[in-house]
Amino acid sequence: MPVLLDPARAPVLSELLRAVPGGLVQSVVPGSGLHADPRIAGLGSLAHASEQEISFIVHPKYLDHLALTRACTVIVLPEIEEKLAQTVPAPRFARVVCKHPYLLYARIAQWFEWARRPAYEPGIHPSAIVDPSAQIDPSVLIGPHAVVGARCTIGAMSQIGAGCVLGDDVEIGASSILYPKVTLYYGVRVGDRAIIHSGVVLGADGFGFAPDPSLSKGAWGKIPQLGTVIIGHDVEIGANTTIDRGALDNTIISDGVKIDNQVMIGHNCQIGAHTAIAACAGIAGSTKIGSRCTIGGMTGISGHLVIGDDVHISGGTGIIANIEQPGRYTGVYPFAEHKEWQRNAAVVSQLSSIRKRVRALERD
Amino acid sequence: MPVLLDPARAPVLSELLRAVPGGLVQSVVPGSGLHADPRIAGLGSLAHASEQEISFIVHPKYLDHLALTRACTVIVLPEIEEKLAQTVPAPRFARVVCKHPYLLYARIAQWFEWARRPAYEPGIHPSAIVDPSAQIDPSVLIGPHAVVGARCTIGAMSQIGAGCVLGDDVEIGASSILYPKVTLYYGVRVGDRAIIHSGVVLGADGFGFAPDPSLSKGAWGKIPQLGTVIIGHDVEIGANTTIDRGALDNTIISDGVKIDNQVMIGHNCQIGAHTAIAACAGIAGSTKIGSRCTIGGMTGISGHLVIGDDVHISGGTGIIANIEQPGRYTGVYPFAEHKEWQRNAAVVSQLSSIRKRVRALERD
Amino acid sequence: MPVLLDPARAPVLSELLRAVPGGLVQSVVPGSGLHADPRIAGLGSLAHASEQEISFIVHPKYLDHLALTRACTVIVLPEIEEKLAQTVPAPRFARVVCKHPYLLYARIAQWFEWARRPAYEPGIHPSAIVDPSAQIDPSVLIGPHAVVGARCTIGAMSQIGAGCVLGDDVEIGASSILYPKVTLYYGVRVGDRAIIHSGVVLGADGFGFAPDPSLSKGAWGKIPQLGTVIIGHDVEIGANTTIDRGALDNTIISDGVKIDNQVMIGHNCQIGAHTAIAACAGIAGSTKIGSRCTIGGMTGISGHLVIGDDVHISGGTGIIANIEQPGRYTGVYPFAEHKEWQRNAAVVSQLSSIRKRVRALERD
Repeated sequence: MPVLLDPARAPVLSELLRAVPGGLVQSVVPGSGLHADPRIAGLGSLAHASEQEISFIVHPKYLDHLALTRACTVIVLPEIEEKLAQTVPAPRFARVVCKHPYLLYARIAQWFEWARRPAYEPGIHPSAIVDPSAQIDPSVLIGPHAVVGARCTIGAMSQIGAGCVLGDDVEIGASSILYPKVTLYYGVRVGDRAIIHSGVVLGADGFGFAPDPSLSKGAWGKIPQLGTVIIGHDVEIGANTTIDRGALDNTIISDGVKIDNQVMIGHNCQIGAHTAIAACAGIAGSTKIGSRCTIGGMTGISGHLVIGDDVHISGGTGIIANIEQPGRYTGVYPFAEHKEWQRNAAVVSQLSSIRKRVRALERD
Repeated sequence: MPVLLDPARAPVLSELLRAVPGGLVQSVVPGSGLHADPRIAGLGSLAHASEQEISFIVHPKYLDHLALTRACTVIVLPEIEEKLAQTVPAPRFARVVCKHPYLLYARIAQWFEWARRPAYEPGIHPSAIVDPSAQIDPSVLIGPHAVVGARCTIGAMSQIGAGCVLGDDVEIGASSILYPKVTLYYGVRVGDRAIIHSGVVLGADGFGFAPDPSLSKGAWGKIPQLGTVIIGHDVEIGANTTIDRGALDNTIISDGVKIDNQVMIGHNCQIGAHTAIAACAGIAGSTKIGSRCTIGGMTGISGHLVIGDDVHISGGTGIIANIEQPGRYTGVYPFAEHKEWQRNAAVVSQLSSIRKRVRALERD
Repeated sequence: MPVLLDPARAPVLSELLRAVPGGLVQSVVPGSGLHADPRIAGLGSLAHASEQEISFIVHPKYLDHLALTRACTVIVLPEIEEKLAQTVPAPRFARVVCKHPYLLYARIAQWFEWARRPAYEPGIHPSAIVDPSAQIDPSVLIGPHAVVGARCTIGAMSQIGAGCVLGDDVEIGASSILYPKVTLYYGVRVGDRAIIHSGVVLGADGFGFAPDPSLSKGAWGKIPQLGTVIIGHDVEIGANTTIDRGALDNTIISDGVKIDNQVMIGHNCQIGAHTAIAACAGIAGSTKIGSRCTIGGMTGISGHLVIGDDVHISGGTGIIANIEQPGRYTGVYPFAEHKEWQRNAAVVSQLSSIRKRVRALERD
């Protein structure tokens, strides 16, 4: 449960709805409780919201939860309001009628997130080590123990968290947030409005080696990784994700891409605009992924592949060939109770022979 | 091989056995070597222990290893001691007879681990940046370059390693250890006796986005993550693991949960008491896992699932449905020599048709 | 595209070829362009190289790309040069004829990588916290906010990046590079010429617990991890990889091993010389892997296994048994369009029964 706003700062419902963008609200129906225009100190789930909070219901199948909620106000679909209007006695909570309750919820959450944040005070913490050649906009915040290398540029209103390390020649756009302990190797470029979570490493060397016969048997010679990583605008990158620098060309993450935690993107990859990549996915080097794709968690994608636009890959799938057509793709071995798995898995190694035996039977 | 204690600090066997808790020891049988009560400077495996160390044997199948060990003392099962007592010549090493040798080993290892540790000196390193509003027990150790935000509380005897960053309003209980470079986002709560390894990130934003038609085609609007992460007592969390904060409610890790390295736990998950999660497992958002489960390494669990108590999932399994019954569950595609895999994998895409053909043959 | 060298520092082709080791070059054929011995400011791919750069072609199937490249010089195979020599008009670019173009590329890339690097200035940054008992060679560089514990030793020409934390008794050889924010727990040993990327954690506790009946039902007792991690010479370790310390014996990474990002290696593992492990692979505790193996990305290997020399495992494979014979091994469930996957996956749980039915039909 999020911390509630101090009542002195909490808006009344009508103020709150005026403050969020979008013309999403159809009507507001007062509840049978005390306040026609209740004060809203926070946003909660139907099950856990307190009487100072607003909640929401996105589907009629959750109607039962409504009866139990303590929320003072609930965002509802028009068809739900139709049912509530006939309830006797009338619901205690106020309703905000809206065709897109999830979107209104998201926007109200954004409002509370900003209200929650401590006042923003720009400046460079005295313990930060910033190279004198770096160009830092005066509105930037640089936290304790951060390190900023030579010739870096950081745009207006960006925040560099405690302990972040920016190598030489790093560029960060405006209004970007680096949470504590992000590492950007030399030359990495990040656009505007990025959100980069703790532990992210951008621009480490790609995994490039070649057998070198001048070395001992089996030894690998390193192929230096001379490219860099380019991150577009409005990109979010989750905690402990790594994106490697290109070998010769660059690794490119396009505008609006959203990447979850512990994702690995290899060198020279290109990810198209607005593609979302869930946690623990791994994309091997030189693969190109189109726009508006969704990549499920723990999905592995081989190197040097081309995945088109609007491709949706289920979690846990291994992609080992190009995908040209939009659509949903899956490849998960079904789980089962262990002994049942053993019985069936033993047959996997005989599939080819079983096919032959079926053919033989058909010929009989 | 662990560093041996300085002989001046090493206990003799009888002292050591008095120092470990538990009444596990049945008897001590002197070896035919020089010392009836040998000095024990460390703990080693049968194969690698030196003559200054104690070792252990958990199963009669390792009896052959006993003949070769150099350990001065070995923890043995009663049935092994029966055999050793008849050996001619008598074994050189002393024996500690015990029905639970692995448990006694664990407790002796704990004794040596504490003996090995440098003396604990509480205090805040001068390079640490601690907000004046934080409440730090005087017995706490805060390492170099750590950062502690506003209104944090840290309980007695806890240690905050070098370079850790605690956001505002973080709470840490008593006797907890944060190894270097742990990041706790604002509002995260950790109980007593936690062990959190380096690179862990607790409380980064969950992966929450909604299509927003007011943005360009395919663009995602961010859903702020207003909950937090609550970690119970006696929890251990491995290196580079990430646990995201809840969207509205909290992400909850119950007492006694043990989490290995590079595990990912999504927003709003709840993990029941004493569940153990091996490395590289990923649990997607809003999934609830019961108590006393074991989750194998690299297992992926989809979001919004419910897994009951005492469920054991083999490594590498993808869980895409609820599991109500206790038991062991597995779903791993069998590996094979590559060409054999190719032959059989080609048939997977024909399984449905093969089933039909078998049915047709049966009808004939 | 990598940053180009300042023209004043860029070598002419003949100088560059003299500077790289190896006698790989068969001949140099001037292009029909302006300079017989062009100045080379960088190295680029055929598609993206500028006129100041050298490029390379490793296979005749990319011949079409040659016609479009802007590179002033291209490294080519002898058989490609034969074709180019007959082209009318003659190619604009110079050719370096060479039987191993990829190896020559790697060496030229190494040359440019060193030329790119800022001048190396040894010394300990004033913000670093170095224990007075540590033995640091005067040629070592220690970056801002690094922490070096008691009795550490760091060999000649090694570099410790910003924010690295070395626990007590860590040993690092000569000419090793730790990028920013690497964590080495107490007692970890690293050889010469290591490259360790940001976010790596070496020596965190292995995942060792035993049920302890003196605790509450289902509770785990911790088994202290008394071993350490030993890293050989010429090892590279990718960003956010974790390698756990041994329980009693050590975890050992042999000479020449190359490890990609986000790899997890459990306690007591032993990895043989020159084995390469791709990103997101996980190796559970006490497994031994031979020399010159390649482990594909996101491969999971169970604990207590033995994998021989020269074994090659495809990405995404789960290894749950020993592998003695050299060769390539695979175990990936084939992906498909989602509905097709559903149809076929439903049959997996019936494989054992289908085999029986085929047998029954055969008996008829």
